Amino acid sequence: MTKTALVISAHAADFVWRCGGAIALHAGMGYEVTVLCLSFGERGESAKLWKEEGMTLEKVKAARRGEAEAAAEALGVHELICMDLGDYPLELDRSDRDRVVDVIRKVQPSFMMSHSQYDPYNTDHMYTTQVALECRMIAQAWGHNPGEKVLGAPQLYLFEPHQTEQMGWKPDTFLDITPVWEKKRAAMECMNGQVHLWDYYTRVAQQRANHFKRNSGGQAGGRDCKYAEGFQSVFPRTVDEL
Amino acid sequence: MTKTALVISAHAADFVWRCGGAIALHAGMGYEVTVLCLSFGERGESAKLWKEEGMTLEKVKAARRGEAEAAAEALGVHELICMDLGDYPLELDRSDRDRVVDVIRKVQPSFMMSHSQYDPYNTDHMYTTQVALECRMIAQAWGHNPGEKVLGAPQLYLFEPHQTEQMGWKPDTFLDITPVWEKKRAAMECMNGQVHLWDYYTRVAQQRANHFKRNSGGQAGGRDCKYAEGFQSVFPRTVDEL
Amino acid sequence: MTKTALVISAHAADFVWRCGGAIALHAGMGYEVTVLCLSFGERGESAKLWKEEGMTLEKVKAARRGEAEAAAEALGVHELICMDLGDYPLELDRSDRDRVVDVIRKVQPSFMMSHSQYDPYNTDHMYTTQVALECRMIAQAWGHNPGEKVLGAPQLYLFEPHQTEQMGWKPDTFLDITPVWEKKRAAMECMNGQVHLWDYYTRVAQQRANHFKRNSGGQAGGRDCKYAEGFQSVFPRTVDEL
Amino acid sequence: MTKTALVISAHAADFVWRCGGAIALHAGMGYEVTVLCLSFGERGESAKLWKEEGMTLEKVKAARRGEAEAAAEALGVHELICMDLGDYPLELDRSDRDRVVDVIRKVQPSFMMSHSQYDPYNTDHMYTTQVALECRMIAQAWGHNPGEKVLGAPQLYLFEPHQTEQMGWKPDTFLDITPVWEKKRAAMECMNGQVHLWDYYTRVAQQRANHFKRNSGGQAGGRDCKYAEGFQSVFPRTVDEL
Amino acid sequence: MTKTALVISAHAADFVWRCGGAIALHAGMGYEVTVLCLSFGERGESAKLWKEEGMTLEKVKAARRGEAEAAAEALGVHELICMDLGDYPLELDRSDRDRVVDVIRKVQPSFMMSHSQYDPYNTDHMYTTQVALECRMIAQAWGHNPGEKVLGAPQLYLFEPHQTEQMGWKPDTFLDITPVWEKKRAAMECMNGQVHLWDYYTRVAQQRANHFKRNSGGQAGGRDCKYAEGFQSVFPRTVDEL
Amino acid sequence: MTKTALVISAHAADFVWRCGGAIALHAGMGYEVTVLCLSFGERGESAKLWKEEGMTLEKVKAARRGEAEAAAEALGVHELICMDLGDYPLELDRSDRDRVVDVIRKVQPSFMMSHSQYDPYNTDHMYTTQVALECRMIAQAWGHNPGEKVLGAPQLYLFEPHQTEQMGWKPDTFLDITPVWEKKRAAMECMNGQVHLWDYYTRVAQQRANHFKRNSGGQAGGRDCKYAEGFQSVFPRTVDEL
Repeated sequence: MTKTALVISAHAADFVWRCGGAIALHAGMGYEVTVLCLSFGERGESAKLWKEEGMTLEKVKAARRGEAEAAAEALGVHELICMDLGDYPLELDRSDRDRVVDVIRKVQPSFMMSHSQYDPYNTDHMYTTQVALECRMIAQAWGHNPGEKVLGAPQLYLFEPHQTEQMGWKPDTFLDITPVWEKKRAAMECMNGQVHLWDYYTRVAQQRANHFKRNSGGQAGGRDCKYAEGFQSVFPRTVDEL
Repeated sequence: MTKTALVISAHAADFVWRCGGAIALHAGMGYEVTVLCLSFGERGESAKLWKEEGMTLEKVKAARRGEAEAAAEALGVHELICMDLGDYPLELDRSDRDRVVDVIRKVQPSFMMSHSQYDPYNTDHMYTTQVALECRMIAQAWGHNPGEKVLGAPQLYLFEPHQTEQMGWKPDTFLDITPVWEKKRAAMECMNGQVHLWDYYTRVAQQRANHFKRNSGGQAGGRDCKYAEGFQSVFPRTVDEL
Repeated sequence: MTKTALVISAHAADFVWRCGGAIALHAGMGYEVTVLCLSFGERGESAKLWKEEGMTLEKVKAARRGEAEAAAEALGVHELICMDLGDYPLELDRSDRDRVVDVIRKVQPSFMMSHSQYDPYNTDHMYTTQVALECRMIAQAWGHNPGEKVLGAPQLYLFEPHQTEQMGWKPDTFLDITPVWEKKRAAMECMNGQVHLWDYYTRVAQQRANHFKRNSGGQAGGRDCKYAEGFQSVFPRTVDEL
Repeated sequence: MTKTALVISAHAADFVWRCGGAIALHAGMGYEVTVLCLSFGERGESAKLWKEEGMTLEKVKAARRGEAEAAAEALGVHELICMDLGDYPLELDRSDRDRVVDVIRKVQPSFMMSHSQYDPYNTDHMYTTQVALECRMIAQAWGHNPGEKVLGAPQLYLFEPHQTEQMGWKPDTFLDITPVWEKKRAAMECMNGQVHLWDYYTRVAQQRANHFKRNSGGQAGGRDCKYAEGFQSVFPRTVDEL
Repeated sequence: MTKTALVISAHAADFVWRCGGAIALHAGMGYEVTVLCLSFGERGESAKLWKEEGMTLEKVKAARRGEAEAAAEALGVHELICMDLGDYPLELDRSDRDRVVDVIRKVQPSFMMSHSQYDPYNTDHMYTTQVALECRMIAQAWGHNPGEKVLGAPQLYLFEPHQTEQMGWKPDTFLDITPVWEKKRAAMECMNGQVHLWDYYTRVAQQRANHFKRNSGGQAGGRDCKYAEGFQSVFPRTVDEL
Repeated sequence: MTKTALVISAHAADFVWRCGGAIALHAGMGYEVTVLCLSFGERGESAKLWKEEGMTLEKVKAARRGEAEAAAEALGVHELICMDLGDYPLELDRSDRDRVVDVIRKVQPSFMMSHSQYDPYNTDHMYTTQVALECRMIAQAWGHNPGEKVLGAPQLYLFEPHQTEQMGWKPDTFLDITPVWEKKRAAMECMNGQVHLWDYYTRVAQQRANHFKRNSGGQAGGRDCKYAEGFQSVFPRTVDEL
C-alpha cells in the first residue's frame, strides 16, 4: 500500500523553506506527498513583487502560483492544492474547513505537517496549525460524512519557523536530507520573490546537520550529515523498541 | 554487535515500577540491560519493613537487595549493580560519580533511562537525573580517562514518576509491553514491601495501553495493546524517515 | 440558601467521566447541580453507534440524549440542559453564548466546571473552556441585561481530560468520591456507546484515590480513600485559614 | 521627524491605569501618542454607573467617553480614537480590523502598547492583544492597500494587567514616570466610576519605583525613583550597545 | 490537639514581610507557629547597619537577632529558632540539614512555609526552598531515626517574594489578615535596618486585599478586606467539598 | 569614567563563539572587558587534541590557554583570567567562588555575561550561570568584605548556547557586530581544536543578522546588518524612554 503525507502550508512558499527536504526525501521513498497551500502569501510575503510597477493582486497570485508549482515539481510533490483563501489575514470559514477535512480524508496521511503553535510575527501561521488540529479531529469523527474512510491518528509535525526561539518551537526530530539537498535547493530557487532566503535556509539546513551529527553520536560515532531539517512532534509516538 | 541499555534508578524498586516492561522487552530482543541502583530505598521507601519489630538498617537493605535481585532476574536484567549510597537523601561524591561514569562507559548504552527532572515529593529522584546528565557528559569527554572508549550520544528516557502531572513529566513515547507483561507483574510481586503498588502500576500499564491505542490510530486502526509504558525523551531523535 | 454548581460539558458524556463523582457528592450535600451539555458528541464521540447499520444523526443524538439523561438522573443532577449545538467542531455564535450567560446568571453557581485549557486531540474541549471564561466574564458585567442579578466570582475547576500530560493539565485539588462511587459507576454504565471507558475511568478514580491518600498524609496518617477525582483551579482561593 | 506611539486599549480606562505615565512622559518628549479605545468598557467596567437609577447604555457610554477625553487631555494624548465596538465581549469583524490597520499605518508608531497575552478574568484583554498582533502583521504587508506606507517593526509593549501573576505577565522594562506623576494622577482622577482604583494604581506605581531602583543599582547606586511603570516586550530589541 | 505550623526563613526578616500576617492570624487561632531562621541576613540584608562606623559581623548579627526576636514576639510566634548558618551564600551541610529535619519532626506542622522556587536576585531564597523540600522528604522517611514520629504530608506554601513576576511565583491562595494587621505592622517596625520596606509591604498587603475582594466576588458580593497575604501551594489539596 | 564588562565563560573557548563580537564591539567603544575562564575545557572540549599521539592533560591545557590568549588579544580583551578549575565536571568550592566575587567587585561591570540557565548536554554551562548569579549576589552584600566597593545591579546577559531551542534560551536583544566581524572571525580562527565550529558560528552570526534586520524594520526600513549576536537578559531594564 502506498504511504502518504500531507503538508498544510499557510502561504505558497512555506512548504519549500520549512520541509522541502522532508517532502523530497519521502517522495523518493515512494510516499505520495500532498501539499495544501491555503494562500499564495500574495499580500504579505511578496514584497519584492509589490515594489514593481503596475503590480496587481492577480498578477502576484499568478506569479506565486507559478513558483509554487515549479517548486512542487522539483520536490516530487504528488499533488499541490492551492486553496487561494487570501492571506494577512488568512481566514477559513466552515466550508473552507470542510474542504480541508476532505483533503485529509482523501489523502489518509501517515503524517501531517504544519506551522509552529505560536508566532507573534505572523498570526496566519499559528492560525493554520489551529485549523490543522481542528480538521484532523473532524476527519477522525465517525459521524462526519458517514461512510467515508475515517482518519487514524497521524503525527502532526511542526516544521521550522523563522526565528525559532521567539515561537517557542523546539525540535525533537532531525531528518537527514543530504540525499535530496539538490532538490530542495532547486525548489528554493524557484522562489524568485524571496532570493534573500535561499542562503538563509541553506544555512538553516547546515546548522541542523550539525545538530543531527551531535545527537547521533557527536565526536564518538556521530553520523556525518551535510543538510538536515528539524521538526517538533505534537503527539506521542507508539513503538515496539526504544 | 550486542545492543545495550542502562537504567539509573535512585532506589531499588524504581526500575521495576517505572520501566520493568521496557527492560524485559529489550532483554527479549537481545539487549544487555544493566540496572544501576544508587540506593536500596532503605530509609525512605521501606515503611512496611520499618514497622516490623527489631528492624535495622542492615536488615532492610538486605531485604531490599534480595527483592531487587529477584525482580532483576524476572525481567532478564543482564547485570544489576547496587551502589548502596544511601537514600533520603541520596548524595554522590566525586568518586561515586566517577563510578557511574565507569559504568556508562563500560555499558556503552544505546539508550539510558532515569527519573523525571522535577519531583517536589522526592528530591532523590530529580537529583538522580541531574547526576545522570552530568555523568553522561563526562563519559563523552575525550580527556576523561583517555584511551577508554568514549560515549556517543544515547537518548536519555525519563520513565514515569508517581503523580506525573505534579512532576511536569510529559510522555512522548509509548512502548507496547504486552508481550512481556507477565514478567513485569512477576517482578513487581518480588517487591514485598510495597504490595499496594502492584495493582497501582498494573493500572498505570493499562491506562498507557489505552494511550498507545489512541495514538496509533484510535477507533480507526489503532493497534490493540493491553499494557504499555510511557517515556519522555530529553534529546531529539535523528532519523531517515518520519 | 441553596448552594449551586454549574458544569459546562462540550459533549454529552464528558460530565460523567470527568466529574460525575463531584456532581453526585455535592448533590448529596444539597447542592443543586446544573449540567450544560453544549452538544451530544454525536459526530465525534459516538463511533460505536455509527458502526451500526442505518444510523442517522438524529438517531445518534436521541440515543446520546437518552444516555445523558439517565446518567444525570443517576448522579442526582438538578437540571440537565442540552443545547444541541453540534460537535466536531462545536461552535457557539453570539446568541448561543448569550444563552450560556443566561444559564450562569440563573444558576449563580458557587463553582463552575469545564475542560482543560489545551487539548490538541480535541479542539472542542479547549474551545468550551474559552467560552466558559468569556461567558463568566459577561455574567459579571453590570451592564449586561441590567437589573438581573450579577455573577460573583465562582471558581472554575478544570476537570480531568484524557491523557492529562498532553493537555498540560495539573490537578491542585483531589476530591474523595468514595461515598458516591456506586452512583458514578452507574452513571458511566449508562454510556452504552463507550463501554471501553467504564473501566478506564474506574481506574482513573482508583489512581486519584492513591494520590488523595498520599497528599493527605501518605504512610503517616494519610486518609484512606478508594475513589477520587482531580481538578485544576483557574483562580486563586480566598481563605481565613490555611 | 516627529516620533509617534500607539496605545490599543480594550476599554476606555485601560490606557490610563496601565500606561498613563508612559503616555505623558513621551508626549512631554515630543512624541505624538495616539490612543485607540476599542470600547468604552460600558457594560463590564462601569458598575458604579449602572448602580445609579435610570441608567442606560447610551448614558454610560457618554459618561465614559467624557472621562476618557478628559484623561487623554490630562496626559497630553495627541489623538484619542474611540471605536465604540462594544465590550464584554469585545468583537471586531473584518472591517473593524481594517480600521485598526488604517490607524496603525497612519500613525506609523515607533512603539505600540496593548494588554497581556493571557487573562482568564477578562477575555476582552487577551483578545485585544491578539487583534493588535494580527493588525500589526497586516500593516506590514506590502499587498495590503498597495501604495500606502508600509509599517516597519515597532515593539509591542504589554502594559501591566490587574493581578499580574495570574496573567503570566512578566515585566522586562521599568520606565521612570516620576516627572509626569501629577499628570497620571490627574488623569486617573478623571475616572469617576472607578474611584477605588486611584489609590490602587498609585500604589502600583510606587512598587514599580522600588523595582526601578533595585534594578538600576539598589543600595549601591540605584537611581531614586518615586513612580514607575512596568512593561513586557513581545519582540527582541536591536541595539548597538548593551 | 494543638495545631502547628513551621516557617523556614532564609534570613531573619523574611518571615516578617512575607508571612507575618499568616503567623499572627494562626497564632490567634491557637496554632503553635515555629519560625526557623537559617541566618540573620547579616551580610546581605543589613546594608544600613554596615554603613555605620565600626560595625562588625557580631554586632550586626546581634542587632538582627534582637529585631527578629522582637518581631516574633509581636506576631505571637511560639518558638523562634535562629540557626545562624551564615548568608550570601547560605549553605547547609548534612548535620545542619539533620537539624532542620529534627525541627520538622518535632513541630509536626499542619503546614509549612518557605520561599519561591526561583529567584535570580537571591540564590539563598531558592536554595532554602530546595532544602525545605529535601528535609520534608527525609522527615517522612520511616528509616530516618526509626522510632520517631514520622511526618505526614503538610502543604508547603511559598510566601511572596520581592518582584513576584521575576520569580515565576503565582499565588493561588489569598489569606485575609485584616484582623491582625496591627501586629504585622508592629513586627515590621521592629526591623530598623529596613525602614524603606515598612511601607512597601504595607502596600503589598493592600494590593493583595484588593485581589482577595476580587476573587471572593468582586463588585457582586466580594468580601471587603483591607490587608491580605498571598501564597503559592506546592502540593495538591485533598478535600471533601469543592 | 571607564565602562567595564565581565564575561564568565565555563570553558576557554565559549567567550569566543558566544560573545566575541560583543567583546570586540564594546572594547572598541572603550569598555574594559574582562574575561574569566573557569576552565580550559581541557577534558571535554578538546577532542581533536586528545586524538593526537602522546597527549597529556598539561599539554592540552597549555594549548587551550594559548588559543584563549590569542583570541582574547584579537578581540581586544582588557584582561583574561584563567582560573584553571577543571572541567567535565566544573566545580567551584567556597574559595573559588570568593575569587569570582573578588573579580566581580574589582571589575564593577556595567554588564555581565554567561551561559544559558538550562543545558542537558553540558551541565558545566548551567552550573556556571548558577555560580554567576550566586557570586553577583554576594558581590552586592554590604557585609561581604566590608569596606570594599559594593556591586550595583548589572544586567546578566545569557549568550547563545549550542542548539538554542534545547536549552530553552530565547534572545531578547540582538547586537550588530558587523563593524568588528573580522576580529571575531580572527579570534575564532585561533581555536585550532575546533575548526568545524568556525563556519558554524559564522553562520550563526549571519542568521542573527537576518533577525536583527527583521526586528529593526524588516522590508520597511529594517537596518542592514551582516553579522549579529543574540542575548537573553535575566533582569529587567530601567529606562527613561521606551
